[in-house]
Amino acid sequence: VKFDINSDIGEGYGRFVVADDAALMEVVSSVNVACGFHAGDPTIMANTVRTAKAKGLGLGAHPGLPDVLGFGRREMALSTAEMENALNYQLGALKGIAAAAGYPVTHISYHAAFGNMATGNRELADVLSRAIRAVDRDLVVYSMPDNEVERSARAAGLRTMQLLIADRAYREDGTLVPRGVAGAVLHSSEDVAQRVRRFVEDGVVITIEGRTIPMRARGILVHSDTPGSADLARAVRQTVEAVGATVAPAYTFAE
Amino acid sequence: VKFDINSDIGEGYGRFVVADDAALMEVVSSVNVACGFHAGDPTIMANTVRTAKAKGLGLGAHPGLPDVLGFGRREMALSTAEMENALNYQLGALKGIAAAAGYPVTHISYHAAFGNMATGNRELADVLSRAIRAVDRDLVVYSMPDNEVERSARAAGLRTMQLLIADRAYREDGTLVPRGVAGAVLHSSEDVAQRVRRFVEDGVVITIEGRTIPMRARGILVHSDTPGSADLARAVRQTVEAVGATVAPAYTFAE
Amino acid sequence: VKFDINSDIGEGYGRFVVADDAALMEVVSSVNVACGFHAGDPTIMANTVRTAKAKGLGLGAHPGLPDVLGFGRREMALSTAEMENALNYQLGALKGIAAAAGYPVTHISYHAAFGNMATGNRELADVLSRAIRAVDRDLVVYSMPDNEVERSARAAGLRTMQLLIADRAYREDGTLVPRGVAGAVLHSSEDVAQRVRRFVEDGVVITIEGRTIPMRARGILVHSDTPGSADLARAVRQTVEAVGATVAPAYTFAE
Amino acid sequence: VKFDINSDIGEGYGRFVVADDAALMEVVSSVNVACGFHAGDPTIMANTVRTAKAKGLGLGAHPGLPDVLGFGRREMALSTAEMENALNYQLGALKGIAAAAGYPVTHISYHAAFGNMATGNRELADVLSRAIRAVDRDLVVYSMPDNEVERSARAAGLRTMQLLIADRAYREDGTLVPRGVAGAVLHSSEDVAQRVRRFVEDGVVITIEGRTIPMRARGILVHSDTPGSADLARAVRQTVEAVGATVAPAYTFAE
Repeated sequence: VKFDINSDIGEGYGRFVVADDAALMEVVSSVNVACGFHAGDPTIMANTVRTAKAKGLGLGAHPGLPDVLGFGRREMALSTAEMENALNYQLGALKGIAAAAGYPVTHISYHAAFGNMATGNRELADVLSRAIRAVDRDLVVYSMPDNEVERSARAAGLRTMQLLIADRAYREDGTLVPRGVAGAVLHSSEDVAQRVRRFVEDGVVITIEGRTIPMRARGILVHSDTPGSADLARAVRQTVEAVGATVAPAYTFAE
Repeated sequence: VKFDINSDIGEGYGRFVVADDAALMEVVSSVNVACGFHAGDPTIMANTVRTAKAKGLGLGAHPGLPDVLGFGRREMALSTAEMENALNYQLGALKGIAAAAGYPVTHISYHAAFGNMATGNRELADVLSRAIRAVDRDLVVYSMPDNEVERSARAAGLRTMQLLIADRAYREDGTLVPRGVAGAVLHSSEDVAQRVRRFVEDGVVITIEGRTIPMRARGILVHSDTPGSADLARAVRQTVEAVGATVAPAYTFAE
Repeated sequence: VKFDINSDIGEGYGRFVVADDAALMEVVSSVNVACGFHAGDPTIMANTVRTAKAKGLGLGAHPGLPDVLGFGRREMALSTAEMENALNYQLGALKGIAAAAGYPVTHISYHAAFGNMATGNRELADVLSRAIRAVDRDLVVYSMPDNEVERSARAAGLRTMQLLIADRAYREDGTLVPRGVAGAVLHSSEDVAQRVRRFVEDGVVITIEGRTIPMRARGILVHSDTPGSADLARAVRQTVEAVGATVAPAYTFAE
Repeated sequence: VKFDINSDIGEGYGRFVVADDAALMEVVSSVNVACGFHAGDPTIMANTVRTAKAKGLGLGAHPGLPDVLGFGRREMALSTAEMENALNYQLGALKGIAAAAGYPVTHISYHAAFGNMATGNRELADVLSRAIRAVDRDLVVYSMPDNEVERSARAAGLRTMQLLIADRAYREDGTLVPRGVAGAVLHSSEDVAQRVRRFVEDGVVITIEGRTIPMRARGILVHSDTPGSADLARAVRQTVEAVGATVAPAYTFAE
């Protein structure tokens, strides 16, 4: 069985850096590349694409709201049309840079508030999924399981891959404990490894309250801006490989 | 014989508008679409693409320097790599939006200071031309004649089309009289029509000093932000059609 | 009695223009100057200040949300601290430019979504009012009557002036008919003049449903981006002067 | 004798960070605060002002070109008027935030390409110096010695303080070895301490070629984004104090 360890990469801006992308790209199988709206710029994107190509990583677009100052984490009242156009613009921008480097974009994963807007809004999610399909029908849509992003993508005839978020605590309903709440972010490689082992072996995750819930996922996301993210990702990879599973981009999975 | 009347379109930003794009798109055969760096935003781009599709216009990318405040007219010290990546990003962004609308991008035309940087710098022009070819080898490169943009595009195996600038005065060396100099911009439909007639019939243009110089071009550009631009474009079109020539996008020209 | 006819001015951005500021500044007694976050840039601000000084107009800061693309009309989830700091930054920026020109800033008026956030949120409104007082205790706070912006400003010991919005329809609760609803914006000079006459003579305004409601205000705002805004402002001024009232900036009003 | 150890602070942007500002502010006597054009945002500025107030540090504006993506290091063709307005805007913005916090701005120091434009252009430098004087005649202008920024500031009647750049190599003409040249940046605390000792004791600095040149300065700048900047600043402070000199902001110096 294969798992796709991935991370949001290229989330700097000009001279500004938020994560050790080089170290992360030694460990993950796929990268979700910031496309310039919440972070990322053409040169960071081009450098990321080159490294992804050299290492054979899955290359994904990671579109966000147009708010570098807020890192795409602040809700903004964009219309459905503005969301759709922002998606096509960012996805196209990455495809342009990737084409120039001779490497294909293989998936898409929404960033922060951009994704939150679609997760619970089927009408918006449908518009976005149909747009993705119109731009590139071979893209795999990454999302957490059982939300409107997944359902709309399937309805549009797109492949999907569900994500376990390795460095964030879960509630019993399968949603994440919000940032700012104590324990929301996992910082220890041991904790992350232990959780990933249960997930890979038993298909479950332990919630912040200690309950066991099912976790339908084949992707494992580590946030690049979590402190020590490269160490966490390495712990994930070692755990996955220790049980005999393979680490590979989602587009290589059998259907 | 065919001529391609074109204009820079979509050069607004959010609520901000600089030209009567709707009126211009009734007249031109091709549009050069601002891609968000000096002007334009995803929604303006999407609306422009939709209209271009409805009217069957040639659809071109019009990439600029990253400077909305300066409208891409202020020189900025970008490196060659930054220029190349900015090009691929903007071209890709338009291709993404066009793909979602089911309409192809057919050409590219550089904006203002972005173009000025390439016009006289063969090394930069070569890098940009090779990038265009890597992203989409079918694009036609629009430029004024006899500069490094044209030469590098041909060297890269790309089709080119040369432009007469209908609303700007020329010097004897074939370059434009700089903005700010008296007489640099033509405002009268009669003057523009008269010039275009000489160009279409005889392949020449009259300089600001009154000399006649050869003008090797098949495209006729009207700047959208010249006051009365739609009237000027209409004068161009009537003049071209009055001599029995056809108005059509460059990609339809016989090689 | 005095009335302060005012308008939001300087809401362009670089080459982008949304209103005929020069014509409006011939008519109004005060200007609310965009400060660079939703519109406006340092050079537009400096030019506006110079004209305001030449004509003796009241000079106000018009701070907005950091969203040029959305013209400050899209809600954004800024924290209270982010709002306070954005206010101080923009107010200070205008004071810096005004100081260099040797002319004082005399009032403040919130723009669009920035104002909407404060209007119904006393805690936020209090923070902003105290910040204004700390930066310049002589500023007059302009707002529509009977909301938290007015109440918090008074509580902070600041002078206030209430606004009639001349070009927008009212509902019976004294709020505006939202943009997008039919009849929300008044376009006719006659309609505006008629309304202003009732307001100046009787202190009332007629709602969109035809009811008469009291209107406690001494300022009359015309939005600069309403088509024909200079004509509307002229109609307001002629109406006010025809009944023998004086047009002057709020800071000159007797307490 | 007093020396003012200072550093460029607040050069982050939203979530983006470039330096350990907290550690630096434990060591320096003055901070040059980025004002939002090349880096910095209202909230970072407000937090920096609060810390500066708590520690009694000299508080300076550090205006830059409008280019966050390029960190204000890329030359841009701004007009003299655009430069002047950008200066007044940024200086005013910091004064607004400082006023709200009840702490005074005491000096100004130009950032990167903004400063380079003024350093060799007396006409521009004069315009900027007169603008500073109009906004706040008590500000001290920080600059390297013997350039047009210093001369124009004196001519405008402003106090000045000259800077030794502690972490950058010098050429014999007193200018800096450009970034990118080997040896341009000093990384070792020992090297910095040794250089500062010669400077404080003998008023000289050793050039990259090994010559000794006079260095007329009372301020010592450490770039915050040089790796290990807080350690370098600590080495500077220990060296200055070891020879019995005092570390204090320039505005406290006797005239």
